Amino acid sequence: MQEFSITIQPRFYETDALGHINNASIAAWFEVLRTSFLDSMGQTNPADAMGWILASVQIDFKAEIFYGSDVTAVITEAVVGNSSLTMTCRMSQRDVTTVTGRAVLVRMDSDTKKPMRIPDGLRAEIEAL
Amino acid sequence: MQEFSITIQPRFYETDALGHINNASIAAWFEVLRTSFLDSMGQTNPADAMGWILASVQIDFKAEIFYGSDVTAVITEAVVGNSSLTMTCRMSQRDVTTVTGRAVLVRMDSDTKKPMRIPDGLRAEIEAL
Amino acid sequence: MQEFSITIQPRFYETDALGHINNASIAAWFEVLRTSFLDSMGQTNPADAMGWILASVQIDFKAEIFYGSDVTAVITEAVVGNSSLTMTCRMSQRDVTTVTGRAVLVRMDSDTKKPMRIPDGLRAEIEAL
Amino acid sequence: MQEFSITIQPRFYETDALGHINNASIAAWFEVLRTSFLDSMGQTNPADAMGWILASVQIDFKAEIFYGSDVTAVITEAVVGNSSLTMTCRMSQRDVTTVTGRAVLVRMDSDTKKPMRIPDGLRAEIEAL
Repeated sequence: MQEFSITIQPRFYETDALGHINNASIAAWFEVLRTSFLDSMGQTNPADAMGWILASVQIDFKAEIFYGSDVTAVITEAVVGNSSLTMTCRMSQRDVTTVTGRAVLVRMDSDTKKPMRIPDGLRAEIEAL
Repeated sequence: MQEFSITIQPRFYETDALGHINNASIAAWFEVLRTSFLDSMGQTNPADAMGWILASVQIDFKAEIFYGSDVTAVITEAVVGNSSLTMTCRMSQRDVTTVTGRAVLVRMDSDTKKPMRIPDGLRAEIEAL
Repeated sequence: MQEFSITIQPRFYETDALGHINNASIAAWFEVLRTSFLDSMGQTNPADAMGWILASVQIDFKAEIFYGSDVTAVITEAVVGNSSLTMTCRMSQRDVTTVTGRAVLVRMDSDTKKPMRIPDGLRAEIEAL
Repeated sequence: MQEFSITIQPRFYETDALGHINNASIAAWFEVLRTSFLDSMGQTNPADAMGWILASVQIDFKAEIFYGSDVTAVITEAVVGNSSLTMTCRMSQRDVTTVTGRAVLVRMDSDTKKPMRIPDGLRAEIEAL
């Protein structure tokens, strides 16, 4: 697929006493990547963004990330199910893969609060990638 | 006044690469102290809590705070204006004063979105401290 | 096993515009749980705590967590490998399971920066649970 | 002075249940602005960045900041004392001033852990703004 990518500039407060970026900040960055991807699909705030819930997230830490140089975060795959969207990601710094991850989102009907089928337009757009 | 106090256990992710608790985490702790104080006044979530906005916050950093031992956070003064509530705080760790702060909150009318007079019951309760 | 448990009081700033606790805050809470567990094993800051790195984390979001009532976070299982420690957790609020998770930590030799065998004393202590 | 400015894209997890960006996130953004300014002065991580401590921060919240559109954060003034550097800032979104702030940093000697005079080169560079 054509990869969707953003650049993240590590922030000093995102480091911890071990001298690297803390794992919780990386979970937060993954959200930034997911929302940016959904934004690029027109799933903008508020109503559409609100229509997605996070069902699960998996993060594998391959190498430390440090303050002081940019991180590239990429959606490497986006797979549409009936009501779910599974995204895998990779983050790298100075050409070293530091993180891989996978998140499963579910499209919710804001009225019934139940999972709903992902609309065909969005489905086609993601599958076209 | 009879001081209102809470205990905060520093979290590892709240440290930064300088090896101490980051200033942004301390701003967050001050919110924990303020909301705990308001909760103790019956200003509980959701409607009442929503009725307060933060107008300003001042934090003075007197000494570093470290991971590994508890922090005591105290409201040292709470002064009620017409629609405002000014709280001063002190945080200490191992009997060392590490932070002093001051925050001004304003009571908002949730319908008109304008400042409203702090209700007499709450006013009396705070002044009684 | 005898479960290790802590209580977490959700903080207002940990909510997001969807009105519940944000997923990144839950990743942060999982770290609080892990460090508390390691602390209880005498793996205290700084040197010992520094000896662990997080290799992976998986979080499944079962139900929303809200501001205003306590969360119980439990280590449901801790399995010792050669140099790894795999912990599973469950978080609940008002008796509803809201989160389950799994994290793999690796014990590092602070000199060689390579994985090292988990010391027998600690190994026995965890296995005794 | 020639203003130093950065653009901040609000992140979803930085919102809170009131639907706007939480005050603690704004304190964090102010750090991003300060470190970016110092970086632009060659006060880069690690040794130089480590040489500054935050003595105080004041933030005035003028208007809400929302997710979904960029924030411009500007250093409006930087005043050099003997060992101190006082920065004032303004943040705006959609041309509305949302935040003003002031922070006092102190230059520390990393050996003696005491305040040291700000080096003449840096002093001249800031004063030239």
